[in-house]
Amino acid sequence: MPTHTAEALDRITREVRDLIRQGHYTAAADRLRELHPADRAEVVTRLPAQEREDLVAHLDVETAAELFEELDEEVAADLADDIHPERLADILDEMEPDDAADLLGDLPPDLVEMLLAEMEDSAEVVPLLQYPDETAGGLMTTAFVALQEDATVDDVIAFLRILRQQDEDEDVDIPFYLFVIDDQQHLVGVVDLRELVSAPPGTRIADLMDPQVIAVDAWTDQEEVARIMKKYDLAAVPVTDEEKRLIGVVTYDDIMHVLEEEASEDILHLGGVESEPLAEKPYWEQKLVEVFRSRFPWLLLLFVAGSYTGSVLRMFDAELRQVISLSIFIPLIIGTGGNVGSQTVATVIRALVLKEVRPRDALRAWWREVRVALLLGVAIGAIGFLRAELWGVDAHVAWAVSLTIFAVILWASTVATFVPLAASALGIDPTHISGPLMSTLIDGTGLLIYFLIARAVIPEL
Amino acid sequence: MPTHTAEALDRITREVRDLIRQGHYTAAADRLRELHPADRAEVVTRLPAQEREDLVAHLDVETAAELFEELDEEVAADLADDIHPERLADILDEMEPDDAADLLGDLPPDLVEMLLAEMEDSAEVVPLLQYPDETAGGLMTTAFVALQEDATVDDVIAFLRILRQQDEDEDVDIPFYLFVIDDQQHLVGVVDLRELVSAPPGTRIADLMDPQVIAVDAWTDQEEVARIMKKYDLAAVPVTDEEKRLIGVVTYDDIMHVLEEEASEDILHLGGVESEPLAEKPYWEQKLVEVFRSRFPWLLLLFVAGSYTGSVLRMFDAELRQVISLSIFIPLIIGTGGNVGSQTVATVIRALVLKEVRPRDALRAWWREVRVALLLGVAIGAIGFLRAELWGVDAHVAWAVSLTIFAVILWASTVATFVPLAASALGIDPTHISGPLMSTLIDGTGLLIYFLIARAVIPEL
Repeated sequence: MPTHTAEALDRITREVRDLIRQGHYTAAADRLRELHPADRAEVVTRLPAQEREDLVAHLDVETAAELFEELDEEVAADLADDIHPERLADILDEMEPDDAADLLGDLPPDLVEMLLAEMEDSAEVVPLLQYPDETAGGLMTTAFVALQEDATVDDVIAFLRILRQQDEDEDVDIPFYLFVIDDQQHLVGVVDLRELVSAPPGTRIADLMDPQVIAVDAWTDQEEVARIMKKYDLAAVPVTDEEKRLIGVVTYDDIMHVLEEEASEDILHLGGVESEPLAEKPYWEQKLVEVFRSRFPWLLLLFVAGSYTGSVLRMFDAELRQVISLSIFIPLIIGTGGNVGSQTVATVIRALVLKEVRPRDALRAWWREVRVALLLGVAIGAIGFLRAELWGVDAHVAWAVSLTIFAVILWASTVATFVPLAASALGIDPTHISGPLMSTLIDGTGLLIYFLIARAVIPEL
Repeated sequence: MPTHTAEALDRITREVRDLIRQGHYTAAADRLRELHPADRAEVVTRLPAQEREDLVAHLDVETAAELFEELDEEVAADLADDIHPERLADILDEMEPDDAADLLGDLPPDLVEMLLAEMEDSAEVVPLLQYPDETAGGLMTTAFVALQEDATVDDVIAFLRILRQQDEDEDVDIPFYLFVIDDQQHLVGVVDLRELVSAPPGTRIADLMDPQVIAVDAWTDQEEVARIMKKYDLAAVPVTDEEKRLIGVVTYDDIMHVLEEEASEDILHLGGVESEPLAEKPYWEQKLVEVFRSRFPWLLLLFVAGSYTGSVLRMFDAELRQVISLSIFIPLIIGTGGNVGSQTVATVIRALVLKEVRPRDALRAWWREVRVALLLGVAIGAIGFLRAELWGVDAHVAWAVSLTIFAVILWASTVATFVPLAASALGIDPTHISGPLMSTLIDGTGLLIYFLIARAVIPEL
């Protein structure tokens, strides 16, 4: 199927909207059916909610099922809510079991119960519902091919041909890796389709298979699954239950989406935004109130924590009145502390995400960061001295500013090294330690350092 | 091959180090050879530079080639520098052409010339050297299988079996998709290996292939290649030259690494750290001076831009002297502006990275962000008023603070919406617009807003 650029999809979206507004739903549905399922989902996502609903009501069950497989989760759930349960059950039956389970996971429990009772293939989906979305069990499909060790290459190829003929109309669901199980469904080996196709006919699967299969438990977090597949260049990884029985397969396409989703969550977290439920929704689908809720708690927390800066300034009210020029450096000093904190926290979080640094490396990491901070502190401290001199302030004040910049840079990099490592040690996702949180932690303490140094250095105080 | 946890790899690293220090290089090399190539690279990366060099000198050419394929680029280049060119040429001959080209791209030009003259398979590698690392051409492999339309399924399977027998010892390099070309090497179709294996014998490739192949040009940026493969769930995408001739293939494993690399670069950029060359190096491999260089220019720029805050405070020196309590809110106000800026910039950058928002949507995006800002401004402004009252400042000052918080939140979200969109319109990677840059831009202007409001609201001024 041809694919389209963003501009072509804009044009097609306009065509589809015109058809819908003229009441030509069948023509709009036909236009949609010509598109690649991924492009189809993109066009539907761009429609306003009402037009989207009306159009989906006119799609045949198979096209609707393909559409739901490609839509972002939250968009799919909103849309599903408006479909009659009987029709929705038919659509769920047509969907891949893992996508159907994801959609069911986002619907209200009483509706799910009704749908499962109505569905024909609910047996494939029910076992998947027990696993959270973000685990191997939540990502895996249960529609996989498992082989017995005593089969031959010819048996398997003949079997795959039958499988394909049974389902002529649909995409054949043959994976790139075939897994080998024993009588108790225990995973005992893997055969790469590339080896199967090029093996001499008559070869026994037991002789062809690799018995050292890399597998994951169903409860493994999706980030860990992604790390393993990426590290070992796997196109698919088998999923086992507590008894090491094969229960599903996670494929590379799921993982590409996980990597994107995690990256997208990280961007939001680092900016101080709660990613739930925003990370799973396209920008224009996010409701104002959701956006507000994702930002307000952090902003409030940071505001309350930041009030501490006011308390510090009130403590040093007398000093500020006496040497008014001290105040002009306040934003610059806390800004520099915040900037060094952001840089350090970004570096440490990246290393934690890539598993290059672990909490027990804390001291070694701190020693590295503090040496960088020494260099930065001397350089920026010296420039700060010159800047203060250029503004013509008293030489003692210039010294206090310069020493404070040096000290705040050391302090900021220390805090920004230990906080994400401590979070990680406590089992908190370190990407939640945002740049804004770091700046706020450093602001108040930075001011304290400033006035203590000023008191020591400036004779009038 | 079995795989290992991080803890097991720690233990193995200690074993290997002990063997090296006792001079048992062959035993250390044997221990390494037992590991999966990905684990092997991890252990080697953890060794100190000198031990790493000594060990690699004792590896056979094939094991060394597998190791270089898995190592991070910068680590591989450092290590290659210490190997005799004749041996290095043998290692490069054993490597996959795309990995060999990547390694050559990181070596000094005169060494590359010598190596290419020495290599047996340089013809496979030379065409790859013209493409930058971060393009489809830089990622692709030239070792792919191309079919003619008039072949049959049996012909192809027979051919794959011969291919496999020719290279018994090595992993057979058969891809999951086979591409079909005409006499001029133009790409005319694609056959999925899963369809090939399950098709009735005798089927013609022309009848089996999908003629609508999704392909990319060799100069396409790697992020765009990743986006296409992710969107259309492709395990491989063919790469064509200007004349639409098939010249290579990019596979899912390359893309998983691209997605990780891009995410890792984004984390650094958003924290205000230049990612080159750090993003390609493990944390512990980064030299202090490189880390300094990646942070200092940004810190200096932000410091100089931040000095503007001092100039604003000097402009309003008289007001500060008259109403000293104004100064205690300075850090809180600019902190809140910076926090809102970070949140907004993270949201807008995420939407830009995912191509959900484009520069021409600027006004629509701003209207969205400003409505969220209105809600946040009212909420945090009201809390700011209470906070000021609790500190017992004059009611006029409390009003000025509260109104300023409201105005600064609107202003911060406006700046943070337009700046990344403008950067993107100008062809600058918007992830370079960091939280720290945003805070600094907002700091000075936020203070200006504060004092202008204070003058208008406080009768004494």
